[in-house]
Amino acid sequence: MRERPLIDWLRRRIRLAANVHLGPGDDAAVLAAPAAGSRLVITTDVFLEGTHFAAATAPGPLGHKVMAASISDIAAMGCFPSASFVTLAINHSCGEAFVRELGEAIIATAEKYHAPLAGGDVASWPSPLAVSVTVTGETRGLEPVRRSGAQPGDKIFVTGLLGGSLLGRHLRAEPRLEEGVFLNRDVGVSAMIDISDGLSTDLGHLAEESGVGAVIRETAIPVSEDARKLEGQDGVPAVRHALDDGEDFELLFTVSPERAGRLKKSWKFDLAVTEIGEGGGSEVLLERADGARQRVEPGGYEHKWGE
Amino acid sequence: MRERPLIDWLRRRIRLAANVHLGPGDDAAVLAAPAAGSRLVITTDVFLEGTHFAAATAPGPLGHKVMAASISDIAAMGCFPSASFVTLAINHSCGEAFVRELGEAIIATAEKYHAPLAGGDVASWPSPLAVSVTVTGETRGLEPVRRSGAQPGDKIFVTGLLGGSLLGRHLRAEPRLEEGVFLNRDVGVSAMIDISDGLSTDLGHLAEESGVGAVIRETAIPVSEDARKLEGQDGVPAVRHALDDGEDFELLFTVSPERAGRLKKSWKFDLAVTEIGEGGGSEVLLERADGARQRVEPGGYEHKWGE
Repeated sequence: MRERPLIDWLRRRIRLAANVHLGPGDDAAVLAAPAAGSRLVITTDVFLEGTHFAAATAPGPLGHKVMAASISDIAAMGCFPSASFVTLAINHSCGEAFVRELGEAIIATAEKYHAPLAGGDVASWPSPLAVSVTVTGETRGLEPVRRSGAQPGDKIFVTGLLGGSLLGRHLRAEPRLEEGVFLNRDVGVSAMIDISDGLSTDLGHLAEESGVGAVIRETAIPVSEDARKLEGQDGVPAVRHALDDGEDFELLFTVSPERAGRLKKSWKFDLAVTEIGEGGGSEVLLERADGARQRVEPGGYEHKWGE
Repeated sequence: MRERPLIDWLRRRIRLAANVHLGPGDDAAVLAAPAAGSRLVITTDVFLEGTHFAAATAPGPLGHKVMAASISDIAAMGCFPSASFVTLAINHSCGEAFVRELGEAIIATAEKYHAPLAGGDVASWPSPLAVSVTVTGETRGLEPVRRSGAQPGDKIFVTGLLGGSLLGRHLRAEPRLEEGVFLNRDVGVSAMIDISDGLSTDLGHLAEESGVGAVIRETAIPVSEDARKLEGQDGVPAVRHALDDGEDFELLFTVSPERAGRLKKSWKFDLAVTEIGEGGGSEVLLERADGARQRVEPGGYEHKWGE
């Protein structure tokens, strides 16, 4: 694969958004000044063939997934995406068609979720595919929602249905952008994270950063049809899949009891939103149907240090 | 190598700068609002073991190099860096000491050049090291200098001395930040690029983006001692090394004849600045000492599409 024709094609393919004053092709991209007083929100993630995605993953779904997963981090801050940047380390033998499809999907998903691709870098090497995605966002007068704001007594909620995303849903992930901004601006949630490593692991992150424990009720966890399907295949209870499978890209958040009431009344999305427990104590506990409690051990995968 | 202890160490190690409101450890970093009306400048680059750096490269110089090379792209826009973000794909067998040294060097160089590390992502895999760096910057009222602004008749200049960086200088690269801002704000250069792929290749980029040719004089090219040393070793003329070797990370720029005079009078840096030719025609030509002209073919390596 020669790189120059690919590069020229990618540059031609990108349609610049109004807030991208200078796109790929210079030493750096130039973005419009954000709204007055708007702080910047930035996330960066790496996706590795064989670790974060299977070598057999088709380029279209792969491109969608890496971009959607990255934009999901902006949703988890309750903020607004503005642009995106991608680096690709491509195997020498990778066909140009694969890279074009990957690029098309990255560009399309970035555009769909208001994070137009504004720059990047491509190099080829003898090793597997490595993709790195950076997404910028703006606060537009809102305070970004951190992982660290949960209080004892706060109610714990998740959006959507969890578990079994590996059956295919992880490749069709939708960042919960409107929901994230609604929860931040209209509800006033106290802490939020997106579920990328699995409910058990990400609830652990949220509890650790907030310095507070939690109790979640097993019977309250919203279990996806995919999790039930997987139970039929591997015998692992569906609720275990909902707890430990990664890549749901749903929002997990905490909110004061008063605001939880407001949330239930004002929730305006088709997406489910479910109260699963509350903050308190010093451990993260799972309460079973019979009332017995056990510690929740992180069951998802663990590879992130930054975002 | 386990990732979690490394991650915790890195988070503790980072000292947040005043403009970093939220650093590593959440879904995204939060940066201060840039100066009123300041546009954002963003560059992203990938560095691959065996392609962009030798497998034997020590972690300290490597960390410096990847950060300095990335910040150099902000210098080439004549703008001000504000923060940086790094993803690392690390081989499973890579020792923790290596990664810590790499991290220390990345953090130190980022801080030194006013692009404090504000976030990142780390994952391990069975393949070689891949590093991706994103640097954000601000315009602070200046217009970013593009590659595309060169005019026929403009004088062509380079900073520093070129060639032979592979003898070691590429690992000690210094982004020309003050010089870049000076050239943008005080001189008013028409086009600028940093020399990462080599003078011949990067002059080609600048000419192509500007839609104008150029003539550079072989005898005017500032040749480094390293290029002469390499000539002694490989018999390739030192000026050829100055033309084709990459990773000088000097600034190559064009400026109107009037402003070129102002530049020469007002240049206040120890670093050399040398007029090497002028814009015009439709081809990029090298004029030899005897007056003969030949086309300059890109001789550096070629792997970038974005920045």
